[in-house]
Amino acid sequence: MFLYLHFQYFPVVPIMNLLVRDAIIVTQDDNRSIVEGNLFVEDGIITHVGKSTDTSDFVVEAKGGVVVPGLINTHTHVAMTGFRGLLDDLNLEPFLEKTFKLDSGRTDEDIRQASLMSLREMISGGTTSFADLYYSENVIAEACRDIGIRGFLAWVTLDKEITTQEGDPVSNAEHFVKSWRGKESLVTPMVGMQGVYACSEDTVLSAKEVASRLETGLHMHLCETRHEVYGHVGKTGKRPVEWLDHIGLLDGSVPLLAAHGAWLTKSEMRTLKNADVRVSSCARSNMKIGSGIPPVKELIDEGVTVSLGTDSATTSNNLDMLEEIRTASLLQKVSKWDASVLPAATALDMATRNAAASLGAAGEIGSIEKGKKADFVVLDSSSLRMAPLTRQNAVNQIVYSAQASDVTHTIINGKPVYADRKFTHY
Amino acid sequence: MFLYLHFQYFPVVPIMNLLVRDAIIVTQDDNRSIVEGNLFVEDGIITHVGKSTDTSDFVVEAKGGVVVPGLINTHTHVAMTGFRGLLDDLNLEPFLEKTFKLDSGRTDEDIRQASLMSLREMISGGTTSFADLYYSENVIAEACRDIGIRGFLAWVTLDKEITTQEGDPVSNAEHFVKSWRGKESLVTPMVGMQGVYACSEDTVLSAKEVASRLETGLHMHLCETRHEVYGHVGKTGKRPVEWLDHIGLLDGSVPLLAAHGAWLTKSEMRTLKNADVRVSSCARSNMKIGSGIPPVKELIDEGVTVSLGTDSATTSNNLDMLEEIRTASLLQKVSKWDASVLPAATALDMATRNAAASLGAAGEIGSIEKGKKADFVVLDSSSLRMAPLTRQNAVNQIVYSAQASDVTHTIINGKPVYADRKFTHY
Repeated sequence: MFLYLHFQYFPVVPIMNLLVRDAIIVTQDDNRSIVEGNLFVEDGIITHVGKSTDTSDFVVEAKGGVVVPGLINTHTHVAMTGFRGLLDDLNLEPFLEKTFKLDSGRTDEDIRQASLMSLREMISGGTTSFADLYYSENVIAEACRDIGIRGFLAWVTLDKEITTQEGDPVSNAEHFVKSWRGKESLVTPMVGMQGVYACSEDTVLSAKEVASRLETGLHMHLCETRHEVYGHVGKTGKRPVEWLDHIGLLDGSVPLLAAHGAWLTKSEMRTLKNADVRVSSCARSNMKIGSGIPPVKELIDEGVTVSLGTDSATTSNNLDMLEEIRTASLLQKVSKWDASVLPAATALDMATRNAAASLGAAGEIGSIEKGKKADFVVLDSSSLRMAPLTRQNAVNQIVYSAQASDVTHTIINGKPVYADRKFTHY
Repeated sequence: MFLYLHFQYFPVVPIMNLLVRDAIIVTQDDNRSIVEGNLFVEDGIITHVGKSTDTSDFVVEAKGGVVVPGLINTHTHVAMTGFRGLLDDLNLEPFLEKTFKLDSGRTDEDIRQASLMSLREMISGGTTSFADLYYSENVIAEACRDIGIRGFLAWVTLDKEITTQEGDPVSNAEHFVKSWRGKESLVTPMVGMQGVYACSEDTVLSAKEVASRLETGLHMHLCETRHEVYGHVGKTGKRPVEWLDHIGLLDGSVPLLAAHGAWLTKSEMRTLKNADVRVSSCARSNMKIGSGIPPVKELIDEGVTVSLGTDSATTSNNLDMLEEIRTASLLQKVSKWDASVLPAATALDMATRNAAASLGAAGEIGSIEKGKKADFVVLDSSSLRMAPLTRQNAVNQIVYSAQASDVTHTIINGKPVYADRKFTHY
C-alpha cells in the first residue's frame, strides 16, 4: 500500500498492474457481453477480461459484485457545488440572477475547493469522466490532475459586454486550450459557450474558429427552457437551432456537445442529427428547475447520440450518475405512459458508451474491453439495494436501484483512486 | 455495548436512555423549528430537545450532522423485494400477471427473507415506519418485531374467486388484526384491499365492516392507472372514487389510506377530502410503470393529506425514502414548469408529519418533540452530498441531495437499531 501511495504522488513512475477478481463484468462492448470472471489491467490499459489466475500488485476482490465501465457525466459545473442548498425552488431566470451574484466575488481558491468537493463526490459515486462548462477551467484542470479524474473541460465564452471574466472570454478559452492540450492525459481542454442568450453571432463564430483551429470540441447550453427558445425567436425570428444552423455553427466541422435540448422540434432534431451534434440530457436539472420534460425518446429515435449529465449541484442537487440514469429513464416512461420506453440497457448505454462517443473518446473509454483505458467501477456484492444480484439482472439493479454508495472502488486510468470506499491518496 | 445488545435480545428489560449530541435538529414541529443542540431520550420517549450537558448509556456524537424525524414510507409491499430486477420495463398489467405467477409458489420463509431484506434496506436509509399491503402480514409482523421497525400492516383482501390466499381473504384479515392488535407496540394491524379491479362491493363492505368493528384503518390501491379508472367506468358506469362513495365506503367512519391517486378528477379529490381519505403518492413507481404524473399539487391544494410511498422494490426499485421525497418534488415541478411547486419544506412534511397523520399516529411520531416516541435519524455531518451544511440549508440538503447512505444512525422507539452504519442486533 505504501508503494502504491508513493506512485500516486509521483505519477511519472510507471503505474502498477491491477486485478479485479470474481466479478460480474458488464462490459458494455458492442454485444453488451456480461462476463463472470476477472479483469486485468497493465499500465492503465485493460489487457484481459475473463477467466485468469494471474495475481497483481493491487487486487480487488469483487466477491461476485458488479463491474461497470466508469460512468461519464457529460454536463456539469463542478465549481458550483459550493452553492448547493442555496438556490433551490427557483426557476431558471431568478436562479441565474442569484447565481451570478454569488459567483461574482469568488477567488481561484474558492473554485478549487468547490471543484474538489464535486470531484470527490463524483469519484465516490463511480463517475470516472465528466464534461464541465465554466470559467477558470485551469483551476479545475489542476484539481482533475491532482485527484486523478478524467475531465473534458470547456472554458465558457460569452459576449464581452456581459461577462464577469477578466479579459475577453474567447481569448481566455483559447489560452486555456493551448495551455492544457497534450499536457496531462486526464485533461481534454475544450471551448465552451454559455448559450444563444449570452452569445452573439460574433462570439459563436469566434468560439467555433478557436475550437476548429485548435482541433478540439465545443460544449454549450442549448434549448434548456422555453424562455430561451421564444426569447431567441423574438430577437432573431429564428429558434436557437435554426439560428445556429443559419450562422454556420452546425456545418459539422467542429464536434459540438449540446446540453439539455429540452425544447426542440422534430425538424431541429434532424438538424442536430445531420450536424452530428451530441446532446447531454439532464433530467433531474430539467425537473428541478421546471424546464420541461426533455424529448429523449424522440432524439434517440432520430438517431442523435444522447448522453446524461447531472448539471450542477445547485440544480440536480447531487452528482450521483446512478440516480441520474434512473431518473432519466423514469421521466421518459411517465411522459409516454409506457414502462417499456428507455429500458435499462439503453439507459446504461447513455451513461457509458454513448457518453464516450459524445466526447469523441469512444475508442478509449466507455466500455470494458481489451486495449481500452482502465476506467471502471466496482459495485458492492453485498449491497442491500442490489439484492438479489445475478448476472441476468445486474444491469437492472444498476439502473433502477443502485446508488453512489454502492460503489466500493473507482479505477481511473488504471489507478484505484477510490478503494474500499476510501480515497487512496487525496 | 454488550449490555446494550443484551437489552435488545430481552426487550422486557427497561430500555436505556440515549443522547444525541451536537446536532442540527430538524424537529418538524408545528413551527418547523430547527434547533442546534442535543436530544435526550428516556424509555423510548423524547424528553429533551435543546441545550443539555447530560450524558447517557448510549451517546451518538452527531458532530454537527442533521437529525430528522424517522422517515415514514406509507405504501410498500416489503415481501416483494425478492423479485427486484425481474419485473422491469413492464406496464402494470403484464407486470401484475408476471408478479402473480412468481408469487404463487412462495412459502412463509420466502416472505420472511424478502421482508427482512426490505426492512434492513429501509432502516439503513432512515425509514422508521412503513405501511404495508400484502397477505401473510403475520410473517411480516414477526419480522418487524424481531428487527425493531414500526409497521402499519394491512392484510390485503380481494374477491375469494381470484385470490391465491388460502381461505377467505376477509376472514384472514380479521384473524390477523385480532391476533396482532395490542400484542406488540411496533405493529399496528390494519385491513387492506387490493383495489376496485379485484374487490366487489361485497368484499369492500366486508373489509370496511371488519376494520370498523376492530377499530383499525383501511389501506388500498386507488386510481393508480387510467386502465383501472376506465375499466371501472366500463364495468359500473362510475369512476372508482364515485363508486366507492356510492357503495358507502367513503362515509368517513373508517380511516382510509389510498395509495397512488394518480388519476383523479377535482370532484373526486373533493370527495376524498370530505371523507378524510389520506393519499400515499408513489412518484417513482408511477414513473417507472408509466402510470402517469400524480396530481399531488392539486390534492394538496384541495386540502387532502398526502404522504409518500416507495411502493415495492419491483417498481421503485429501491426503498430509499430520501430519493422518493426528492423525486416526488421534482416530478411536480417539471409537470407544472415551475420550480417553486412542492418546495423542500413541503416535501419533507409529506414524509414525516403528514405521513404520521395519514396513519393516525400524529400524536406519537412524525416530529421530534418532547413526549413523542423517539423515532429519528442521524445524517452524516461529513456527507459529501450534503456539503456545505448549515442550519439554514439543512432541509434543502436532505430533500434535494441526501441519499440512504448518508444515514449513520436510525433510532426507533428509543433504540438505536442502526448505529454507525451497522445493524446493532440483527
